[in-house]
Formats: sequence, structure tokens, C-alpha cells
Amino acid sequence: MQIDVCVDLPPSLLARLRAGAGDLPVFMLEPDAASKAEIMFGNPDPSVVTGNPALRWLQLESVGFGEYAALEWSRAAGPAQVTNLAGFFADPVAESALAGILALYRGIDRLVLLQQRSEWQGAAIRESFRCLTGARVVLFGMGAINRRLSELLGPFGCAITGFASGYDPAALDQALASADVVVATVPHTPATRGLFGAARLALLPTHAIFCNFGRGSLIDEAALAAALTAGRLGGAVIDVTQEEPLPASHPFWTCPNLLLTQHSGGGSGDEMDRKVEVFLANLRRFRAEEPLAGLVNFSRGY
Amino acid sequence: MQIDVCVDLPPSLLARLRAGAGDLPVFMLEPDAASKAEIMFGNPDPSVVTGNPALRWLQLESVGFGEYAALEWSRAAGPAQVTNLAGFFADPVAESALAGILALYRGIDRLVLLQQRSEWQGAAIRESFRCLTGARVVLFGMGAINRRLSELLGPFGCAITGFASGYDPAALDQALASADVVVATVPHTPATRGLFGAARLALLPTHAIFCNFGRGSLIDEAALAAALTAGRLGGAVIDVTQEEPLPASHPFWTCPNLLLTQHSGGGSGDEMDRKVEVFLANLRRFRAEEPLAGLVNFSRGY
Repeated sequence: MQIDVCVDLPPSLLARLRAGAGDLPVFMLEPDAASKAEIMFGNPDPSVVTGNPALRWLQLESVGFGEYAALEWSRAAGPAQVTNLAGFFADPVAESALAGILALYRGIDRLVLLQQRSEWQGAAIRESFRCLTGARVVLFGMGAINRRLSELLGPFGCAITGFASGYDPAALDQALASADVVVATVPHTPATRGLFGAARLALLPTHAIFCNFGRGSLIDEAALAAALTAGRLGGAVIDVTQEEPLPASHPFWTCPNLLLTQHSGGGSGDEMDRKVEVFLANLRRFRAEEPLAGLVNFSRGY
Repeated sequence: MQIDVCVDLPPSLLARLRAGAGDLPVFMLEPDAASKAEIMFGNPDPSVVTGNPALRWLQLESVGFGEYAALEWSRAAGPAQVTNLAGFFADPVAESALAGILALYRGIDRLVLLQQRSEWQGAAIRESFRCLTGARVVLFGMGAINRRLSELLGPFGCAITGFASGYDPAALDQALASADVVVATVPHTPATRGLFGAARLALLPTHAIFCNFGRGSLIDEAALAAALTAGRLGGAVIDVTQEEPLPASHPFWTCPNLLLTQHSGGGSGDEMDRKVEVFLANLRRFRAEEPLAGLVNFSRGY
């Protein structure tokens, strides 16, 4: 039995992983190289997974697993298990979401650009600021990220309405119509694709801020850009896009009042350390034939 | 008896103020024009105050009143009272302070600049991010702003150490030595001037973030700029400076990891409405000879 690693680990972390793996040999897999390992760690190309009949456990280094959903996972009920990092990014992403919302409310984005050109605006910019205290917030998706965000919003005294799977679309639309802030954190599934199209975005008040920290497929990007450009929407914080990196010609680069966070929401300096820890904890369970943490449910889609 | 207004009010708010003033005539005072009014609303030039022996009550439109402290206020015990907006800015400034801290922790400042030049950095920027959850925070000054900030930090589970007037300098220095974030909100007084000079700033860990939302005189600006430039300090969020607007040649414009918020922290779209409300509420008290809200204590300095 061997472990193939498809994560770009610095030498110190690879050493730590090897120490934790004990007698199991650990190999760094070149990108797109074939694998015959029983255990894989990272997000290999789906063709590498398909081409490895020996695979018994794949530990992803992400929460999302959309690119693997189309594979023939019928054998998943048998020896091959897939685990993700469910909950791993709750703290950093919730903090990035709050950072983005507060940036738009308190003018941080505009102040950064003023500073870059040494332009003092002072009092003039203050009138465009808002307070988040008491705002009406719609959380679309009630997984680990939005549950943590809900905690962080606690002292702001926001009126929070949360929508989990099985939500009533009419209730969602009603909440959107009076929302100051919307934060979506839902995964990519057939049921979430395109849910926020032009019609639903048009329900939002013109001062509202729409935030997407789930997957880009949720929204009609052209409709969002058009709404912002026309001033029919107050702002947006966009961490995820349908194409990443975002193409140079994409309107999100230049859209007014859109803050693009480049899928950085989950980032933190100790991210790789923590990922290796998650893998090693699951490796111990795997070898002890205990249930793995973060087992992916492909039929549910998250 | 008449009211001279030294605040630039839009016609609708002036009408509201006039309606609230009832039979008292209300005049908009030209900048630096002399006043003979018993009541003044706004922050007139100190010479205008000195030149108005009729003054019985001055309602400032700020919390700070340093520019009036040097006047001969011995008569303050008699007919002339000065009130400020103590507590008025707690919500917006605390939100701006948290927005600034989260911006540096979650890379918002760098993402805004990347977006401006349509540059996707994605994963590369994530490694420099930090989580505020669990951080060690020193609050220097425990007035309304830092008390509100302390509430907002509640769910982050930060280890908060607060220092109010009468603090022990040795305890402060000890707390600074292990601080991740410092937020100063103290007023300008002889006791606060220059408190954060080069030596005290050097106590901070190299990754720490220093925030000033009180008055610029607290810090040695050249020493702060030098520490940031040399990488001896992780970052700074600076709302207040010794000179405002900040001179074009000031190092804060180009300092690395310094976020300059241009004394905008107290801003909000309904700021002037709320100021007029405070004035009218105090006007009612003044005419009823009740104690005024926000009475300034010049000997204490805040």
C-alpha cells in the first residue's frame, strides 16, 4: 500500500506527512502522472482517478468536489472512499465574507484606491458609508461557513434569515426583497446552478449587497454585472466565479462596487499545515478501519 | 436669543432644525464670521468663540474638542457650556476599525489593487492571510468606541486586554509585547501626546497590526512609518493623523501594509440627520434648564 500526494507541499510538510505515515511509502505525484496508489491526497485530474483501479481512498484538499461528481463512483459503496475538507474553511471564509461586507459598508475599497493616488477625500467620502449594525441579512446555505458568519454577525444585531436545503423558494424571494446583505455559500449542484438569475437578482433592493462564497455557477454573472453597472444593486463581494482565473475580458474586473476576492476566502498562512493534519488524522482512521471524517456524499452533492 | 449654525446643512435639514427650534431664530454662520448668538451649533473657529461674549452654549459636531481646550473657559462654570457628541460615533468607528483589521488580515487591500489592474493572483495570495479568530487584542482607551469594538470581537474569541485612563504603563508594555492587534481610541490630551513613540512601537511583535482611531498626536508618525517600511511591524490602520488632510509628501501615503482611512471612521449616510437630532434634543434640555447631554470636561480632556 502506498500514498500518492498531489498537493504541492514544502519539504518540511512532506517530512511531517512521511513521519505521520509511518511504514507507508509516500510519493509526490507529478501533475497528470498516472497513479497506482491505494491512497491519494490532493485533487488529481479526474482522469488520473479513473485510471487508478487500485484506489481505495482519495482525500481531497478542498470542500468542493464537483469535478469528480461525474465519474463512475458506483464502486464508492465498495472499497473506494472520497473525503473532503468539509468545515475546514469555515473560519477563514466567514471572516473574508465579513471583511468584504464591511469593506463595502465602510468604504475600504475606495479608500485603498484613493491612497494609491495620494488623494485625500476625507469628509466627502463619509456620506456614502453605512453601518452594518441592525442590517437585514439573508444567508443562503446554512453549512459551516454561514453558520460561522451568523455567529460573527451576532453583536451587529442583524435580522438574519437563513435558508438551508429544502428551503421554500417563495420565502427566499420574499426575504430577498427587503435584504440589505445576501451571502450565498451553497455548493455547485444541479439544483443550485443558475438559481440567482436576472429575475431573482432584480428582487433585491437597489442598495443591497450580494456576496457569493460558494460556487460561481449559482449566479448569472452577466446579469449581476449589468445590475451593478446600471446601479440597480448596491454592491457585490465575489469570491467564486464560473471561470477561474477570471478571463481578462470578464466584466467583474471593472464592475462598479464589485469586490473580487479571487477565491482567496479560505486562505490562511497555516492552511497547508492544517490540511496535512486532516489527512494524517483520517489516515489513522483508515488504517484502523474506522469511519473517515468528511466522507463525500455524491448523490447529495455536498 | 438666537442660534448660529456653523455646520454645512442641506436645505431639508436646516428646515428640520428650524422647525425644531420653534420661535428661536436660526442663522447659518459664514465661515469665520463673528457671532453674537447665545447658542452655537458646529465647530466654529476658536477665535469666533472667544469673540462671542454672549455665548451660553456651544454644541460641537464632533467628539474631539482639543482646538477649544486652550481657550479661557473659566466662565464654563457660569453661563457658557460646551457639549460634544460623546458616544455618537461608537457604532461607525468600531465598524470601520474592524473593517480595517479584517481588510489587512484577509488581504482586501491587496485584492482591490490586483482587481484594479485586472491581475488574478488567486492561490498565491492566500498564504499571506490570517484569521482574527483567537487573536490577542490590546484596546488602548476604553471609551464608547473600544467598548463597542470589544462587543464586535466577542464571537472571534479574541484574548482582549483593555486599558482605560489610570492604566499601568508597565502592564501596557507587557500586553503590547504579545499583541496581534492594537487599537487606540484615546483623545488628544497632554497625557496621550506621543505615547506611542519608537520605543513603545518596537515592543510589538513584527506581525502585529497597530490601529489608531483616536487622535494623531498619540503616535510618532515617522517611527511608525519606519517600522512598517523596515518590516518590523505587520501593518497599520490609520484613521487619524497629526495633519489633516495628510500632506502630499507624508510617508503614510506609500507605507507598506498601512491602510489610511482618512478620518472617515465616524461616517455614515445619516450622520448629519443624527447630529441635528442630538442638537435638538439638547436644545429642548437647554430651554428647560435641564442638564445637557455630552457636557465637556475641559480639565479631564474628554
